Amino acid sequence: MIIVMEPGAPQERFEAVCHRVEALGYRAYPIVGVERTVVACVGHEDKSPLQPLESMAGVEAVIPILKPYKLVSREWKKERSVLDVAGIKVGGPELVVMAGPCSVETEESVLEVARAVKADGAQFLRGGAFKPRTSPYAFQGLGEDGLKILRAAADETGLKIVTELVSPADTDLVCQYTDMIQIGARNVQNFALLRCAGASGKPVLLKRGMATTIEEYLMAAEYLMAEGNPNVILCERGIRTFETSTRFTLDLNAIPVIRSRTHLPVIVDPSHGTGHWQYVAAMSKADIAAGADGLAIEVHQDPANASSDGGQSLKPAKFTALMDELRRVAAAVDRTLPAKQG
Amino acid sequence: MIIVMEPGAPQERFEAVCHRVEALGYRAYPIVGVERTVVACVGHEDKSPLQPLESMAGVEAVIPILKPYKLVSREWKKERSVLDVAGIKVGGPELVVMAGPCSVETEESVLEVARAVKADGAQFLRGGAFKPRTSPYAFQGLGEDGLKILRAAADETGLKIVTELVSPADTDLVCQYTDMIQIGARNVQNFALLRCAGASGKPVLLKRGMATTIEEYLMAAEYLMAEGNPNVILCERGIRTFETSTRFTLDLNAIPVIRSRTHLPVIVDPSHGTGHWQYVAAMSKADIAAGADGLAIEVHQDPANASSDGGQSLKPAKFTALMDELRRVAAAVDRTLPAKQG
Amino acid sequence: MIIVMEPGAPQERFEAVCHRVEALGYRAYPIVGVERTVVACVGHEDKSPLQPLESMAGVEAVIPILKPYKLVSREWKKERSVLDVAGIKVGGPELVVMAGPCSVETEESVLEVARAVKADGAQFLRGGAFKPRTSPYAFQGLGEDGLKILRAAADETGLKIVTELVSPADTDLVCQYTDMIQIGARNVQNFALLRCAGASGKPVLLKRGMATTIEEYLMAAEYLMAEGNPNVILCERGIRTFETSTRFTLDLNAIPVIRSRTHLPVIVDPSHGTGHWQYVAAMSKADIAAGADGLAIEVHQDPANASSDGGQSLKPAKFTALMDELRRVAAAVDRTLPAKQG
Amino acid sequence: MIIVMEPGAPQERFEAVCHRVEALGYRAYPIVGVERTVVACVGHEDKSPLQPLESMAGVEAVIPILKPYKLVSREWKKERSVLDVAGIKVGGPELVVMAGPCSVETEESVLEVARAVKADGAQFLRGGAFKPRTSPYAFQGLGEDGLKILRAAADETGLKIVTELVSPADTDLVCQYTDMIQIGARNVQNFALLRCAGASGKPVLLKRGMATTIEEYLMAAEYLMAEGNPNVILCERGIRTFETSTRFTLDLNAIPVIRSRTHLPVIVDPSHGTGHWQYVAAMSKADIAAGADGLAIEVHQDPANASSDGGQSLKPAKFTALMDELRRVAAAVDRTLPAKQG
Repeated sequence: MIIVMEPGAPQERFEAVCHRVEALGYRAYPIVGVERTVVACVGHEDKSPLQPLESMAGVEAVIPILKPYKLVSREWKKERSVLDVAGIKVGGPELVVMAGPCSVETEESVLEVARAVKADGAQFLRGGAFKPRTSPYAFQGLGEDGLKILRAAADETGLKIVTELVSPADTDLVCQYTDMIQIGARNVQNFALLRCAGASGKPVLLKRGMATTIEEYLMAAEYLMAEGNPNVILCERGIRTFETSTRFTLDLNAIPVIRSRTHLPVIVDPSHGTGHWQYVAAMSKADIAAGADGLAIEVHQDPANASSDGGQSLKPAKFTALMDELRRVAAAVDRTLPAKQG
Repeated sequence: MIIVMEPGAPQERFEAVCHRVEALGYRAYPIVGVERTVVACVGHEDKSPLQPLESMAGVEAVIPILKPYKLVSREWKKERSVLDVAGIKVGGPELVVMAGPCSVETEESVLEVARAVKADGAQFLRGGAFKPRTSPYAFQGLGEDGLKILRAAADETGLKIVTELVSPADTDLVCQYTDMIQIGARNVQNFALLRCAGASGKPVLLKRGMATTIEEYLMAAEYLMAEGNPNVILCERGIRTFETSTRFTLDLNAIPVIRSRTHLPVIVDPSHGTGHWQYVAAMSKADIAAGADGLAIEVHQDPANASSDGGQSLKPAKFTALMDELRRVAAAVDRTLPAKQG
Repeated sequence: MIIVMEPGAPQERFEAVCHRVEALGYRAYPIVGVERTVVACVGHEDKSPLQPLESMAGVEAVIPILKPYKLVSREWKKERSVLDVAGIKVGGPELVVMAGPCSVETEESVLEVARAVKADGAQFLRGGAFKPRTSPYAFQGLGEDGLKILRAAADETGLKIVTELVSPADTDLVCQYTDMIQIGARNVQNFALLRCAGASGKPVLLKRGMATTIEEYLMAAEYLMAEGNPNVILCERGIRTFETSTRFTLDLNAIPVIRSRTHLPVIVDPSHGTGHWQYVAAMSKADIAAGADGLAIEVHQDPANASSDGGQSLKPAKFTALMDELRRVAAAVDRTLPAKQG
Repeated sequence: MIIVMEPGAPQERFEAVCHRVEALGYRAYPIVGVERTVVACVGHEDKSPLQPLESMAGVEAVIPILKPYKLVSREWKKERSVLDVAGIKVGGPELVVMAGPCSVETEESVLEVARAVKADGAQFLRGGAFKPRTSPYAFQGLGEDGLKILRAAADETGLKIVTELVSPADTDLVCQYTDMIQIGARNVQNFALLRCAGASGKPVLLKRGMATTIEEYLMAAEYLMAEGNPNVILCERGIRTFETSTRFTLDLNAIPVIRSRTHLPVIVDPSHGTGHWQYVAAMSKADIAAGADGLAIEVHQDPANASSDGGQSLKPAKFTALMDELRRVAAAVDRTLPAKQG
């Protein structure tokens, strides 16, 4: 922490700040500059007790130097994590693809999509049984029936499941069916839910919130790891900006930034990140070129009749074409995608 | 809903869209313009089944005309709601003031602040017993002990309590002690929590999320009302923008916008909305002048030693001075503040 | 400047940084912390030559401590500036009101509005003769004819003029007619134009850009003052955010922040800042309560036929009513507005 | 245009709106829905005279259907434009690379960088002789001397030049030396400058502003084309968001959106778009994978001593490595980069 004194702050205020710093167990190094005096605080790792000093008389600002996260950081673990999610390696040279409908609707439709995306090489079936919807009157998901449909489709096709958990009370139920828990963007700072997901023992796909800084996002991941769960996958899915021609602004800068700060794998969701199926292919290619470890893509066999987010879903034929394009881009950055099946 | 066809979309695509609209139970009115053909869809209130038509061939855009909320709207209830929260009227000519520390720390400190803010006319004691913190290593609140401290301080001073609920599992516990539940900014779209709070029967103070549009925010309030709870108070507390000299950007435009769209009372939290105690007085006056129904202000008797958010808390003496200034501004917009006590 | 070394950066990199700092004429104070080593750089005022050191091997970040502006700062001039603009005091206890149409259209309409706003106490007639328009096909203003209309209306009513300068080439022409130059939001970092306006000797009303931080904004004002022009008035007019129910988000936090950092007067434009006439009254009151030194408000006698921005203009009768309300709010914060005339 | 009436608006207000629409030369088609009455307006292309009707009594909103741009649109010109800039094709299968220092400093340093980037296959030398700087005290560029240095380096190496124009007064001077004019982000809505650049006859590289929507950005390009200049290249360079770990948020969504709306080529500037050289390689690859027609990259032989933006510049050796990586990504999306020279 660097504590910046106001210009012309009297000596006794400066001394009061230094005393408080020392009283809190840090050493205070004053540096007298031409226009400002600052106090550098040295000591144990957790500097947060120093932040409130900004309310002391004579203090202009308190500037943190250290990042607040720990277990997720590359300083804690230098080499990149390659996670094992139900037998699928995430974070290694082979990219992961999670595909499926926004919401689970019927057994037939889920199975149809599952077979299609499995044939194209996807490893995970994604789909919501519990849906967080902006409107209380919108379709909220099939609940346990949806989980059963997902499990059946996964068992039949050999796909793994990732599905969203929206309430701590559903944790056991969701864990019974899924291979990986998804925490959605709107719950990225729902700390009660993060603790449940972290403690569940299941791998967790943690989506970035629409207004979450990368630092806050990594702190949310820290909640999961602090519960003893090492299997955390990050997922950039677009942030809120002033631009309205897309639903969100996919922040691909976040990919190299996240990779430089954490050892955890990071994937991208271009379906939510653009909100329009027309832009999904371009952004999927960009994601992989930027260094992402995989993709989460919405695929629906009849988007115009989807019960949610139809406008951003690809039809299976377009998904097939995209996977072929992605294999070429993956190769160009020394990654691979699973081969087509059958 | 207005469905806009692409320029030059062939007749059969246009007809397919009209058929789908009619099949979904709406009437389709085609309007052939000079450069675009559009289809106006008329029918029952819920237009959301039409949104996925944007994935149909030949469709350029689907543009909603109606607002999606209902119970919270002024069309549903024309006159402004004046709520009764444990005997305090909220939304009437007298403004409400909720004051207290960010976190509940000790019985003595809470009681000291409670007495001070009560003497200045505040009606509610605010303070967190369950704290949503960015870091898992930060102080997370005293839990039930904190609730007991709040209750004791409220009983002794005659203040009402507003305190945050962060997990559905704590609903009964929190309701046992508090007069009003607060849903924090990070949980504004935690729909499981909204349903619990809505169903609890307790009045709810719903904070706007840092990236929540006003429309989404009113939909979150709709979740509460859809559970049968009419006692919902809105609270603007700052949104995320590019500006870094304040912690958030307090969106005071939201006050007249919200008042034009909903009958519910709306207050402002200038402490979180600015993040710096130096700016709280100016923004408190602005809030009231803009038409807010009250304020939530952090007050701490020793901010430099606060366990959270000390930098944005007022000392009791500054709060006293502010309340005097606010009485004058309130009078200038034909509102009142409770008189000083004792 | 504080230079933060990467964790585990080898000693020779650390030394190379210190040498570079000293070579640039600063003293380097190394501080060895538990997890990071930082170098505090002390020396002459301009620290910008140190910023590129972030590209040196082993450097994690370069963190500035000092604000980059000078002439506009309160450290340069402690007391608030009260400017004299053609005989009108700006920044003193009496608030200034600038009112008029977005664009100058006809002599009759401008004169009608000028008489109306003068009668209500406004001191300045605002209106655009050169209009920066998003579309090249939109009405671009009457040019010199518009300036003549403004001058005639001002001379007849005794109002002062503020009108926009959009091109360095028009500086002499605009100065011939106007009492104050306006630099619009889109030109806030048009440094060539700022230099011309600064050197013109005319007072300048500098609008904040829609994505300009307060720090950048004050640097733009510094350009004007660095040309020897002390008569600079700042104007918050809304920033770009994700919220779409208003045209911009009026950042009223900026008022106390700006007042704490600079001695210059600051006013607010609630017409552009909200984009809807319905919200102008509420935000005008808030602006004054927040401590602004005045307002710029669009007034048009027939908004539905305005050639630009009709939707955000008040009719004269509504402006009259607003001025009466504003007098009460001004009094509540110990300011005044000019009395009604005639 | 769709005009939405308020719920319960009386018949005479509805009729007044229809009359005004017809009086302005459009046909008014009323559509009476269950909860709202709307008026669809059909007629000539320019609908902007209808926008001010939102201030009429009884009108809730005026919703545009058509995009406001014309010459830049794909409806105006279906096939993609391949421009010829001093003999270099832009927008064709071969990608363009513009590389060089942020500011022109010395003849030796520019020539050194020019030789290096030419050897790696870049076609354009970029560098600023007139620099728009946030601070009036920062280095503002060498002016004409800088232009001469660029010209000499270009002539010696066979590179083409792109350099920024910041003031209409410099247009002839800059055109005398450069092959392409750059309009910087801060001037994207400096319409006086756009008109000069458009009329100059030189190709123009138009950077997106940091708070410019894609629609506004295309309107800025329309200014250039409306002056008769068909040679316009767009450049995404990052927008302002709440994220602070990068200098801007590179909006790669903009690439497919822009390509779907306009026939003009679009490139990306990952140096400004990230602000940190560490992230430039990842984002350069992503840009090309997303479908961009090229890149503008800062390269400096000694970034730690650069007079501006050193922290985001690549050293020549890193640029060489990046170009090799880019060739592979380009091939994966069926594009090419010029081969290495010599």
